[in-house]
Formats: sequence, C-alpha cells, structure tokens
Amino acid sequence: MIDWDALTAELQGIEVISDPNQVAKLSQDYHTFSPILQAQLDGKKGDLVVRPTTEAEVMQAATTCVKYRVPVTIRGAGTGNYGQCVPLHGGVVLDMSRMQAIRWIKSGVARVEAGVKLAALDKKARETGWEMRMAPSTYRTATIGGFIAGGSGGIGSINYGQLRDRGNINAIRVVTMEDEPRAIELRGDDIHKVNHAWGINGIITELEIPLGAAYPWTEVIVTFESFMAAAHFGQALGDADGMIKKLISIFAWSIPSYFGARQYIPDGTHAALLMVAEPSLELLPGLVQEYGGCITYQRSQQDAGKGVNLAEFTWNHTTLHARNADPSITYLQSLFPADKNLQMVDHMYRYFGDEVMMHLEFIRVGGRTVPAALQLVQYTTEERLNEIIRYHEEHGIFIANPHTYIIEDGGRKVIDPEQMKFKQMVDPYGLLNPGKIKALMRS
Amino acid sequence: MIDWDALTAELQGIEVISDPNQVAKLSQDYHTFSPILQAQLDGKKGDLVVRPTTEAEVMQAATTCVKYRVPVTIRGAGTGNYGQCVPLHGGVVLDMSRMQAIRWIKSGVARVEAGVKLAALDKKARETGWEMRMAPSTYRTATIGGFIAGGSGGIGSINYGQLRDRGNINAIRVVTMEDEPRAIELRGDDIHKVNHAWGINGIITELEIPLGAAYPWTEVIVTFESFMAAAHFGQALGDADGMIKKLISIFAWSIPSYFGARQYIPDGTHAALLMVAEPSLELLPGLVQEYGGCITYQRSQQDAGKGVNLAEFTWNHTTLHARNADPSITYLQSLFPADKNLQMVDHMYRYFGDEVMMHLEFIRVGGRTVPAALQLVQYTTEERLNEIIRYHEEHGIFIANPHTYIIEDGGRKVIDPEQMKFKQMVDPYGLLNPGKIKALMRS
Ligand SMILES: Cc1cc2nc3c(=O)[nH]c(=O)nc-3n(C[C@H](O)[C@H](O)[C@H](O)COP(=O)(O)OP(=O)(O)OC[C@H]3O[C@@H](n4cnc5c(N)ncnc54)[C@H](O)[C@@H]3O)c2cc1C
Ligand SMILES: Cc1cc2nc3c(=O)[nH]c(=O)nc-3n(C[C@H](O)[C@H](O)[C@H](O)COP(=O)(O)OP(=O)(O)OC[C@H]3O[C@@H](n4cnc5c(N)ncnc54)[C@H](O)[C@@H]3O)c2cc1C
Repeated sequence: MIDWDALTAELQGIEVISDPNQVAKLSQDYHTFSPILQAQLDGKKGDLVVRPTTEAEVMQAATTCVKYRVPVTIRGAGTGNYGQCVPLHGGVVLDMSRMQAIRWIKSGVARVEAGVKLAALDKKARETGWEMRMAPSTYRTATIGGFIAGGSGGIGSINYGQLRDRGNINAIRVVTMEDEPRAIELRGDDIHKVNHAWGINGIITELEIPLGAAYPWTEVIVTFESFMAAAHFGQALGDADGMIKKLISIFAWSIPSYFGARQYIPDGTHAALLMVAEPSLELLPGLVQEYGGCITYQRSQQDAGKGVNLAEFTWNHTTLHARNADPSITYLQSLFPADKNLQMVDHMYRYFGDEVMMHLEFIRVGGRTVPAALQLVQYTTEERLNEIIRYHEEHGIFIANPHTYIIEDGGRKVIDPEQMKFKQMVDPYGLLNPGKIKALMRS
Repeated sequence: MIDWDALTAELQGIEVISDPNQVAKLSQDYHTFSPILQAQLDGKKGDLVVRPTTEAEVMQAATTCVKYRVPVTIRGAGTGNYGQCVPLHGGVVLDMSRMQAIRWIKSGVARVEAGVKLAALDKKARETGWEMRMAPSTYRTATIGGFIAGGSGGIGSINYGQLRDRGNINAIRVVTMEDEPRAIELRGDDIHKVNHAWGINGIITELEIPLGAAYPWTEVIVTFESFMAAAHFGQALGDADGMIKKLISIFAWSIPSYFGARQYIPDGTHAALLMVAEPSLELLPGLVQEYGGCITYQRSQQDAGKGVNLAEFTWNHTTLHARNADPSITYLQSLFPADKNLQMVDHMYRYFGDEVMMHLEFIRVGGRTVPAALQLVQYTTEERLNEIIRYHEEHGIFIANPHTYIIEDGGRKVIDPEQMKFKQMVDPYGLLNPGKIKALMRS
C-alpha cells in the first residue's frame, strides 16, 4: 500500500489535485470515440494529479514517484484518442499542461516546454513568419508534448509528412524515472527513442521543433457530384508542386450532413475542405474545373480566425462532429497505398457503401501524396468492426487501429527495440504508463 | 529594305545601340555549349539594339518595329542556351535588361518588371522572409523575363517543380506587336499562352511571381565511393518530406575533377552538392550514413555568399565548368521516369561509361521526386550525338534537346495550339523571333 500522505508531503511546492471528481476527469481522454475502448477503460483513473511548472518540479515528482514505486501516467491536454493517458493501474497523473514557456523561436526552429499549446506556439511563430509544420485538429487545446508522444501528424502533413519522418523533430529533452532522475537531451535521429512513445520513455520537458513557412492561408470548400472526382481532385492538388496548400480533406456524402454548414455543401454532394496559400488561390479554379468541382466557400484565414475554422471539421474532428449527431458512429484510421489512380479508395468506397463512410486526408509519405483515411463506421458489433479492419488489411491498407490501448496493436505493430532498450534505462521499475505494452506484459 | 535612319528617329528618347561590335555581342547567348548550334548560328546577329526602360518605351519600340516590319528578338541577359535570343533574320534586338523595377513584394508574391535580375529579386524578397521559389544557376545575371520566356526550372525545383507547373507564375503582362500595340495582362491558367514561348508571343513587361519561404540555407558536399549510392541518396533526400532542401545535385566522377574543389572531393569519388535548410542540418548525417556517404564540406549560405556559391557548380554551370576545362565536352538535358530504384539511371551510367558522364538534378514532377539530368557528353560527331539521344528516348527518357534552335525539336516537341492562337493575335506579322517555330515554317 502506498502512503499517499507521505508521498504528497514530498511533493511540497508542486500543485497537487486529490479531489476524486477532478482526478477522474483528468484521467480521461477521447478513447470514448471507440465503443470498445469505452467499455475496456470505463472507471480507470489515477489517485492523484500532480501539476509541475518547471523541470525541477518534474524531477522532484519523478524522484518521489520512483521512491514510492507509484505508476505515473503523463498527461498533456488529454485529447489523445487511444486511451493513451488513461491510467490502468491508478497512481499519479502527471499533468504537464502548466509548463508553457516558449524558450525561443528562430528562423525555422522553436524551442518550447512540453505543455505549450499548439495554437499558442503557432501564433507566436507566425509573428516572425513561421508556423507549426503540422498540427492535429485539436491544436487549440492539445500540448506539443502530447502531440509528439501521442500524435502522428495532421494539418500540414501534406507538405512535411508525419512526425515520424526525419527532420520534423530536432530535439527532445526527457526526465528519467531512475532512482536519481536525470534530464537527458536526445538530438537528431536519437529522438526516435521517445517519439510517439505514449509517455513510457521518460517525461518530456522540452522540445526543439522545426517550423514551416507561414503563408497567408485561405479556407476553401469545393463540392463534387461524384465522390471519386473529389478524391482524384485531392490527389491532383496534392501532386501539384506549384500549388501551396496545407490541408486536403475529402468527404463522401453523407459525412458533410454532420457539419451543419449546409448552405455550402448541398445535399448529396461530396466535399473537399482545403487550406490553400493565397498566392495559389488564383490558380485553383483551373484545377477545380478539371475535376468538375464547384467552389462554394472561400475565406481568408485572418477572417476565418474569428469564426469557425474549417480545420476543425477535418482529421478526427470529423469523427467528433459525426458522433455528436449520431453516437453509434465510430471510426478507422488508415493509410492507403501510394497509387495515383486511387483504385483501393474506389474499391472500399463501393464495397462498404454507407457502413464505412469515406473521409480522406491527403498527406505525404516517403515523398508521395497518399490518402490517409479516418473512415466513419456505422458500428454494430466488435466482430463486424474487426471484420472490416481485416478486409482493409487484406487489401494492403494499413490500419492504425484506434480500438486498442495496446501500443503494438495500434499504429506501431511492433515496438522499436531501440525504444525498449531506452525504456529499460530510463524507467527501470516500469512505472511509466504501465499496461500499454504487450512486449512487457509477456515478460 | 528597311530605312534604319527613319526607324531610329522614331525611337527617339529610347537608348539605341548601333555599334556593330556591341550589336553582335548582344546578339549572342550560350548556344555555344552545343557544337551543332555553334555552327548553325555562327555570324547571326541583329542590326540594332533597343533598350527600353519603361512599358511606354516598349510600346513605342513595338509600334515602330511593326510599322517598318522589322523582326524583333527579345533579349534578357542572353544566358539562354538554345540560341533562343540569337536573331536569325537580323532586325532589332529588344534588350529588356534596363526594366528593373520591383513593384511590390507581399506575403508570398512579387510583382516585377521583366528585366529584374533574379539575384536582385531574391535579395529583396529575403528581406521580408521570402525568396524565389526556383532559379537557374545563372541567377546572378539572368532576368526574370528571360527565365519565364526561356527557362524551365532550377535550384528550388526539388520543392516547387518547374515553371510550367500550375501555381509558379501568377500573371504575365505582354505588349503586343499589332499595328496598335496593346498591353495585355494574362492571369491564372492564361499565363501558359506566354510561358516558355521564347519571346514569340509578345514582349513581357511585368510579371507576378509567387515566392517561397526563405530558409537559412547551408551548402553541403557529400562524397560517395559508388555513383549509384550517391544517386540513391539523392532520391532519398528528395523523398524525405521532413528534410527541407533546395538543391540535390549528383555528379559521377570525373565531373568533380572540373570543379577545382579537390580538397572536398577526393579523386575518383562521386559527389552530392546540396543546399539544406539549417533546421534540417542536424538530421542530415543520419541519412548520409545510410548511404555510406561522407560529409566533406558544410558552410552556411551567409558565409558562402562571400565566396563561391555551390549552386554555381550545378545545373548548366556544371557544363560551363567542364567546357572551360575541356571544350570538346557538350551535354544533354533529360528527365528520367519516376522510379525510386533509379534503374534507368543505373543502366545509362553503365551503358555509356565515360562518354556520357552522369549529372543528376533531382526535381519534383507531378508530386514525385525524379532525376533530371544534364549529362556531359564527350562529343565526337553529330551522328553519334543523335544516336546517344535516340538511345535515351528509346528507353523512356525524355530529352529536351539542347542542340536545336527550333522550339518543337527542343523541350516542347509540339507547340501548344493555344500558344499558336495567341501568337496569331499578338504578332500578326510574325515579327517576333522569326525562324524558331517549325509549325510556322511549314505554312
Ligand atoms: C477530435 C480529435 C481530433 C484529433 N486529431 C488528430 C490529428 O489530426 N492528428 C493527430 O496526430 N492526432 C489527433 N488527435 C489525437 C490528439 O488530439 C493529438 O495527438 C494531440 O496532439 C495530443 O495532445 P495532448 O496534449 O492532448 O496529449 P495527451 O492526450 O494528453 O497525451 C497523449 C500521449 O502522450 C503522452 N504525453 C503527453 N505529454 C507528455 C510528456 N510531456 N512527456 C511524455 N509523454 C507525454 C501521454 O502519456 C499519452 O500517452 C485527435 C484527437 C481528437 C479527440
Ligand atoms: C551556365 C548556364 C546555366 C543555366 N542553368 C539553367 C537552369 O538551371 N535552369 C534553366 O531553366 N535555365 C538555365 N540556363 C538557361 C538560362 O540561363 C536561363 O533560362 C535564364 O533564366 C535565361 O534568362 P535570360 O535573361 O538570360 O534570358 P535570355 O537568354 O536573354 O532569353 C531567353 C529567351 O527568353 C526570351 N525573352 C527574354 N526576355 C523576354 C521578355 N521580356 N519578353 C519576352 N521574351 C523574353 C528571349 O527572346 C529568349 O527566347 C542556364 C544557362 C547557362 C548558360
């Protein structure tokens, strides 16, 4: 039994939350998008939330938790959707969201604390002509530490690929969970020891993140009579090297019916939601015309910033809006193979009909424009869901299964041996986010 | 017979050069890279050089030349290498290089007069965080009008593709050669009526050119024991979406022997000359290592600017340096098919051996990284050169033949019917750069 009073005493000077309601709330994330995870993680929560504001406080918290052998689940903003920051075995929820210092921004790179909100970094960077290369649609609330540890990519990935791609993270600084915790700075290719490690490989305190060019962006909606015309348009815009864009999201009807922006997307039409750089805007109509589309909405981001952002209907926000309208909907996360003809997209679109509603997000993978997809699934049973997943995998479509909280069963499939080696060093007692790694459960 | 005195009188107020030596000099370009063009264009020159400084003066010159039915060959800096601005039938050389106003630069777009030097625009743009998306290696002397009318791409094309790609030119303003010359502004897709038209489709006076993000660039030399390792490295760097670069030039030995930078490229090794953004520099060694390369030189552009620029050894400057060392060398301009395995590059490298020395420039074509090539050819006879070209074409390699001054026989193959229609309108008397279009010679 852990002596929580003694432990709390050793956290002196650090904000601690012990109110059970609050703690329960801060043990949650968006795994609720999955009916399967919802059932599996129901009621899981931590015992105490600890909210450091400096690396020194993180060290103090780490020392204390190691001393008492308390599980530590690190939390950013809790917007992850795999249950990544839901504590399976109670313990401390280490909430990093108060560490919000932006250390510096110079030409093309920013150094920030892990709790900095993505929107805040983006805003600050834009003041000097830069912006985040990529961000999830949760950029208003999500933290940079949570994005690196739990996310993969998002708006901007059509230009720079995903976080895992070499060059999108320059340095990660972590505090270890050793008897005498240390701060270790990983640079260059070494960052992969911690990248997308779900908080199992040290507590990220600071990061160096390369930035991209801040264009004046314009939000655009284009509608199409045929879904495949919309999809081919998306591929073509992705492949148009001279057209600067940041977002190419394609939605089969009836997904747009969940958006409530009906004046711009007539019933039964399929839609492209885009972010295009102003200098490229003049050239867009020509391309739209080639695919028989119709531009129904166009607003410069400066104005858009005041109201609704189109980006907040894309990526997993699509799922959010759909579930608000119909809670029986769940989703997939997929990556289609590189193929300019989009044959597999076409096949899956026809094969599943309304049961799997097609939502494409074009991104760059290995130098090529490919459709990632966050299809909306009319959920019936777990068996059927698994059948759908299997059918995709059998057809060469990669599924990053969002219906599991086991790292290997999700996007990763296997854990990088380098990450496991690093874990053994930085977390010798296995206190960080326990229960999420299959490889460790077996042993 | 043209009454040159009367004509000159009507050009009053505009700078005119009639000194035969000067006129002969201003009738030249770099077609001399080709032994075939050298013979064909020997002695071709204009009668008079006219150097307008404003659009009004261009109008005046156009009116006069139309009135006297004088051929007009437009000239930027005369760095073209197809004999594009060599007058075949005498007449006026319209030298645009004095029209150097930069009208405005805003987020991501510049409006400039046609005679602005590329380096001058780039410098000005960088003051506000932008730069030219792409430039030929002749950027120090070449004009923007000449680049649009006669060039194709260059340093930066690894990011934005080529000038022909939608989005890389926003507007072109031309003065016509009608009885009453007009200024016409072409915008959006209409710009293709004039883009790469070799000065046959109106006199470009102003342009709107989209810009790219100005990163702090670092010049890098990497050497390899095997040429194909260097080539595969180039492909991989091109495909690395998170690595920001501007130039990936790959040289088979013995091309580096012409560079005189021997301390950085040991005898017998193959080299990659790169421009990499500073934020991506830290990640470069990992990639270099994967291909067994060795970084031998690295200098930030800020410092490099003071000495020799690496860029001035790439693109057709490679040919320049090689020919300075060995005037019997000539060259090809090719585009290899998209293929991550570079099988055709490998084949041609082995097949021709030292006769065709491999020089690759990776660029983006239709969303993919592909090698363009400006191979150096040990010239023997015209027959052999044509045989080499044919062998490439038979193997699916596109050759933009630099040994012809006929538009259709070079990169274009056929003239866009839209361009021909536009020509009939803007140049009803066929005075602009006569003799360069096969389609018109037939008629
Ligand atoms: C509506 C919606 C849309 C989304 N869209 C996208 C998208 O487009 N792209 C995308 O990639 N993701 C997306 N996500 C998932 C998620 O929002 C993002 O990955 C987000 O960046 C996570 O940040 P967070 O601060 O909320 O992290 P959290 O959810 O708090 O944590 C995520 C993981 O990181 C770990 N972690 C957090 N902070 C640290 C730290 N300092 N040190 C070590 N480990 C840490 C946690 O333990 C957890 O395992 C979406 C989710 C929702 C609900
Ligand atoms: C060493 C070397 C390296 C090179 N590297 C590259 C390269 O990397 N990429 C590339 O694309 N090219 C390259 N070139 C070709 C050439 O330098 C460029 O295309 C350059 O931009 C041409 O500009 P210029 O001002 O010299 O044009 P010019 O040679 O003066 O003219 C080129 C053509 O454009 C027409 N023209 C010029 N100005 C106007 C105008 N205002 N209105 C209408 N027509 C006009 C001319 O009639 C002519 O047909 C290279 C050439 C050399 C010699």
